[in-house]
Amino acid sequence: MQDKKLVTEITSMDVDFAKWYTDIVKKADLVDYSSVRGCMIIRPYGYAIWENIQKVLNQKFKETGHENVYMPMFIPESLLNKEKDHVEGFAPEVAWVTHGGHEKLAERMCVRPTSETLFCDHYANIIESYRDLPKLYNQWCSVVRWEKTTRPFLRSCEFLWQEGHTAHATAEEAQEETIRMLNVYADFCEKYLAIPVVKGQKTDKEKFAGAVATYTIESLMHDGKALQSGTSHNFGDGFAKAFGIEFTGKDNKLTNVHQTSWGVSTRLIGAIIMVHGDDSGLVLPPNIAPIQVALIPIAQHKEGVLDKCREVKEMLSNFTVKVDDSDKSPGWKFAEYEMKGVPLRIELGPKDIENNQAVLVRRDTREKKVVSLDNIAQEVKEMLATIQDALFQKALAHREETTSVAKDFDELKDIAQNKPGFIKAMWCGDEACEIKIKEETTVTSRCIPFEQEEISDKCVCCGKPAKKMLYWGKAY
Amino acid sequence: MQDKKLVTEITSMDVDFAKWYTDIVKKADLVDYSSVRGCMIIRPYGYAIWENIQKVLNQKFKETGHENVYMPMFIPESLLNKEKDHVEGFAPEVAWVTHGGHEKLAERMCVRPTSETLFCDHYANIIESYRDLPKLYNQWCSVVRWEKTTRPFLRSCEFLWQEGHTAHATAEEAQEETIRMLNVYADFCEKYLAIPVVKGQKTDKEKFAGAVATYTIESLMHDGKALQSGTSHNFGDGFAKAFGIEFTGKDNKLTNVHQTSWGVSTRLIGAIIMVHGDDSGLVLPPNIAPIQVALIPIAQHKEGVLDKCREVKEMLSNFTVKVDDSDKSPGWKFAEYEMKGVPLRIELGPKDIENNQAVLVRRDTREKKVVSLDNIAQEVKEMLATIQDALFQKALAHREETTSVAKDFDELKDIAQNKPGFIKAMWCGDEACEIKIKEETTVTSRCIPFEQEEISDKCVCCGKPAKKMLYWGKAY
Repeated sequence: MQDKKLVTEITSMDVDFAKWYTDIVKKADLVDYSSVRGCMIIRPYGYAIWENIQKVLNQKFKETGHENVYMPMFIPESLLNKEKDHVEGFAPEVAWVTHGGHEKLAERMCVRPTSETLFCDHYANIIESYRDLPKLYNQWCSVVRWEKTTRPFLRSCEFLWQEGHTAHATAEEAQEETIRMLNVYADFCEKYLAIPVVKGQKTDKEKFAGAVATYTIESLMHDGKALQSGTSHNFGDGFAKAFGIEFTGKDNKLTNVHQTSWGVSTRLIGAIIMVHGDDSGLVLPPNIAPIQVALIPIAQHKEGVLDKCREVKEMLSNFTVKVDDSDKSPGWKFAEYEMKGVPLRIELGPKDIENNQAVLVRRDTREKKVVSLDNIAQEVKEMLATIQDALFQKALAHREETTSVAKDFDELKDIAQNKPGFIKAMWCGDEACEIKIKEETTVTSRCIPFEQEEISDKCVCCGKPAKKMLYWGKAY
Repeated sequence: MQDKKLVTEITSMDVDFAKWYTDIVKKADLVDYSSVRGCMIIRPYGYAIWENIQKVLNQKFKETGHENVYMPMFIPESLLNKEKDHVEGFAPEVAWVTHGGHEKLAERMCVRPTSETLFCDHYANIIESYRDLPKLYNQWCSVVRWEKTTRPFLRSCEFLWQEGHTAHATAEEAQEETIRMLNVYADFCEKYLAIPVVKGQKTDKEKFAGAVATYTIESLMHDGKALQSGTSHNFGDGFAKAFGIEFTGKDNKLTNVHQTSWGVSTRLIGAIIMVHGDDSGLVLPPNIAPIQVALIPIAQHKEGVLDKCREVKEMLSNFTVKVDDSDKSPGWKFAEYEMKGVPLRIELGPKDIENNQAVLVRRDTREKKVVSLDNIAQEVKEMLATIQDALFQKALAHREETTSVAKDFDELKDIAQNKPGFIKAMWCGDEACEIKIKEETTVTSRCIPFEQEEISDKCVCCGKPAKKMLYWGKAY
């Protein structure tokens, strides 16, 4: 009864995907709405996922030589204005601080929407010689973008992220760094979040305000929409010129540095929900789940059951295991941990104990397996690895099934209207075609993938000679 | 030559303590100044200290049952206004956001100076039954207080901190939590930062805006000034009444929760500098140092020296060791790691290698010890433990030497004027005396210490019967 009630409280994703999403976000205790327009409260379970993301990425950043710093959260207007493209991109969506206490500020400041300008200002102070390079900095913080329409994790006025900002002696090094960090993101998404990504470059139209080139990882959600899941920008020496970041080279000449920046955010949690979730709730990949195993005692009032559960927990000390000995019914608990996407459930009751066994139940497929307690640690290890892999394979299969090829404009229009998913199509490189496609089909260019295919030799829009294959799609 | 130059660049603490402090902050690469008034840039070395503080405290918070969350950084004005004392305390020093993009906001919002109001708003939403209690939440974030005079780490317009916010079913539980977390802070300061603290209660005049009782740990800096290093507040049910946070008890009655909050900040880094530092720079306690051992090759161009250094680093894998093989001179490196407060230096040159030995040099005392490479790991372990303990003992001795007792007002005035340090004196409990002492001597009440002594039976100010012994002092 109870678990049925819990499950039916979620809207089915086929009925209303957006509603299904917000239902999960609330019912799995990831987020609560706040009194602050467009800002979310990240609850303990949601924050624990973010902490796991941070832990893995932070380690990868350190392994690739990066150091963490902390910059002010405010940017004086004059500083934001220093790089022309950048300010045009961000000024319309920043929050402005105009008063400190009872006094009006001489110059208003925005709350950082991103921190390029602050890092540049700092780099101009601390970089003097080629010996000071490269500077490989990262910061974990929150940023603010005054969005009109918001949705938890996907688009909110404030979100948590990391932003890497690096300065290099040469254009080549900056380009290497840009691609290195894109690969770190791609690798993380695929190995930890079990989300397959398309790596590619943004068109000039879609690139970051102030960048020479923006690279992206694009993932596909269950409803066939794309999600930009991480970006890495090569700034060339544009910011360095605007901010006067120069160094004396070995040749004693003054040169501008070349810079990059790259970031991922709590948006990744939105991706996890929309790639793996189902009508019973969240489904978390074992490599990122705050609780990997929910151990549910059956008939826990019977002698020895709870003791045995604690004993089994000890055996599973390599995993994060939660024994739920609350006074709720087992059925309620099953539904609760399904909602929360815990990858593996273990049921353990008097009969199991008698037979020296436990029942393992996969969250993703609901498959059950009775295993001996003698080698339960090995069984759990293997099953978690199996789940991790299965989630990735399922997501990859889904992406491939829903990726279409459009050879001409009519086909593109038809697919855009009738079939969700990525669309591959050739492009002449002209922004006019990009704009026309967006206006007439509502799909936008996602990226120029690194893995190119030659679908045809003509632009899907104008028919002129094609230069590149692009991924198109509707996007969050 | 080079190291001499580096050292002489710092002002001596006896000449100008404030200048000495800011010199260290800059020269040890902890902080850089930014274009944002009163806000600091925390550089990699400074941030690494904060990360170590976070790591230890976060672990202690989790062990005591707390969970991390993230609240919005903005507080709508109407929300801030809900608890009268609280808004009076903070409104004069908040930064106000009035515009989002090009539009004026319907209601202005402040950037959080602290998040009681946001947690209360959330608690009112999620707490319904006694089953939901206690709620033991913490968040790591930055906060903004629009200070007029600022100094890195000690008082800045933006700083990093953690703020615990808890809700309990009874007044007793809230009081237990308040003291439990004060003890966590005290224990952390003494065991990790090697800073002895006085635990006590703030007077009503000095307590937190909206609190029933504020507890504090007070530490003594090298110049004899006190630093409030962490606070823990018991709110009773005042906030709960203002925000309507009620729960249904086992008896089915609606009751307001009892709440606490507690926090420490990057200010602790200021305390480390001012308690342990000397005229050669920073001195870091081994238990919190980002680099515990600086391994300096001597005559590193000679064959085998760098190889041996790397080999020794391997032997010391339980410690954070930095081998500096840059092309700077050993003298420059000695001065550099002294400035950065690295607890232990190891010198290793061809002669040492020949003799299967290394030279260990303590940062705090500069004592040298020649040790065999055969048991260098054990020697390093012992020496780091010795340094950790010595720093604590030295700071404790300094605090005791500079703590005075004042029996009457003349004595209090005289000590306040002529002798830096804590002053113990009796108090009748009347706020008028507290105000008079502050006005006429410039010292302020630090706390009513848990460890009471009966210095006399009369108030140091009015001569009426004394109720408590207080600690007084000049403070940061």
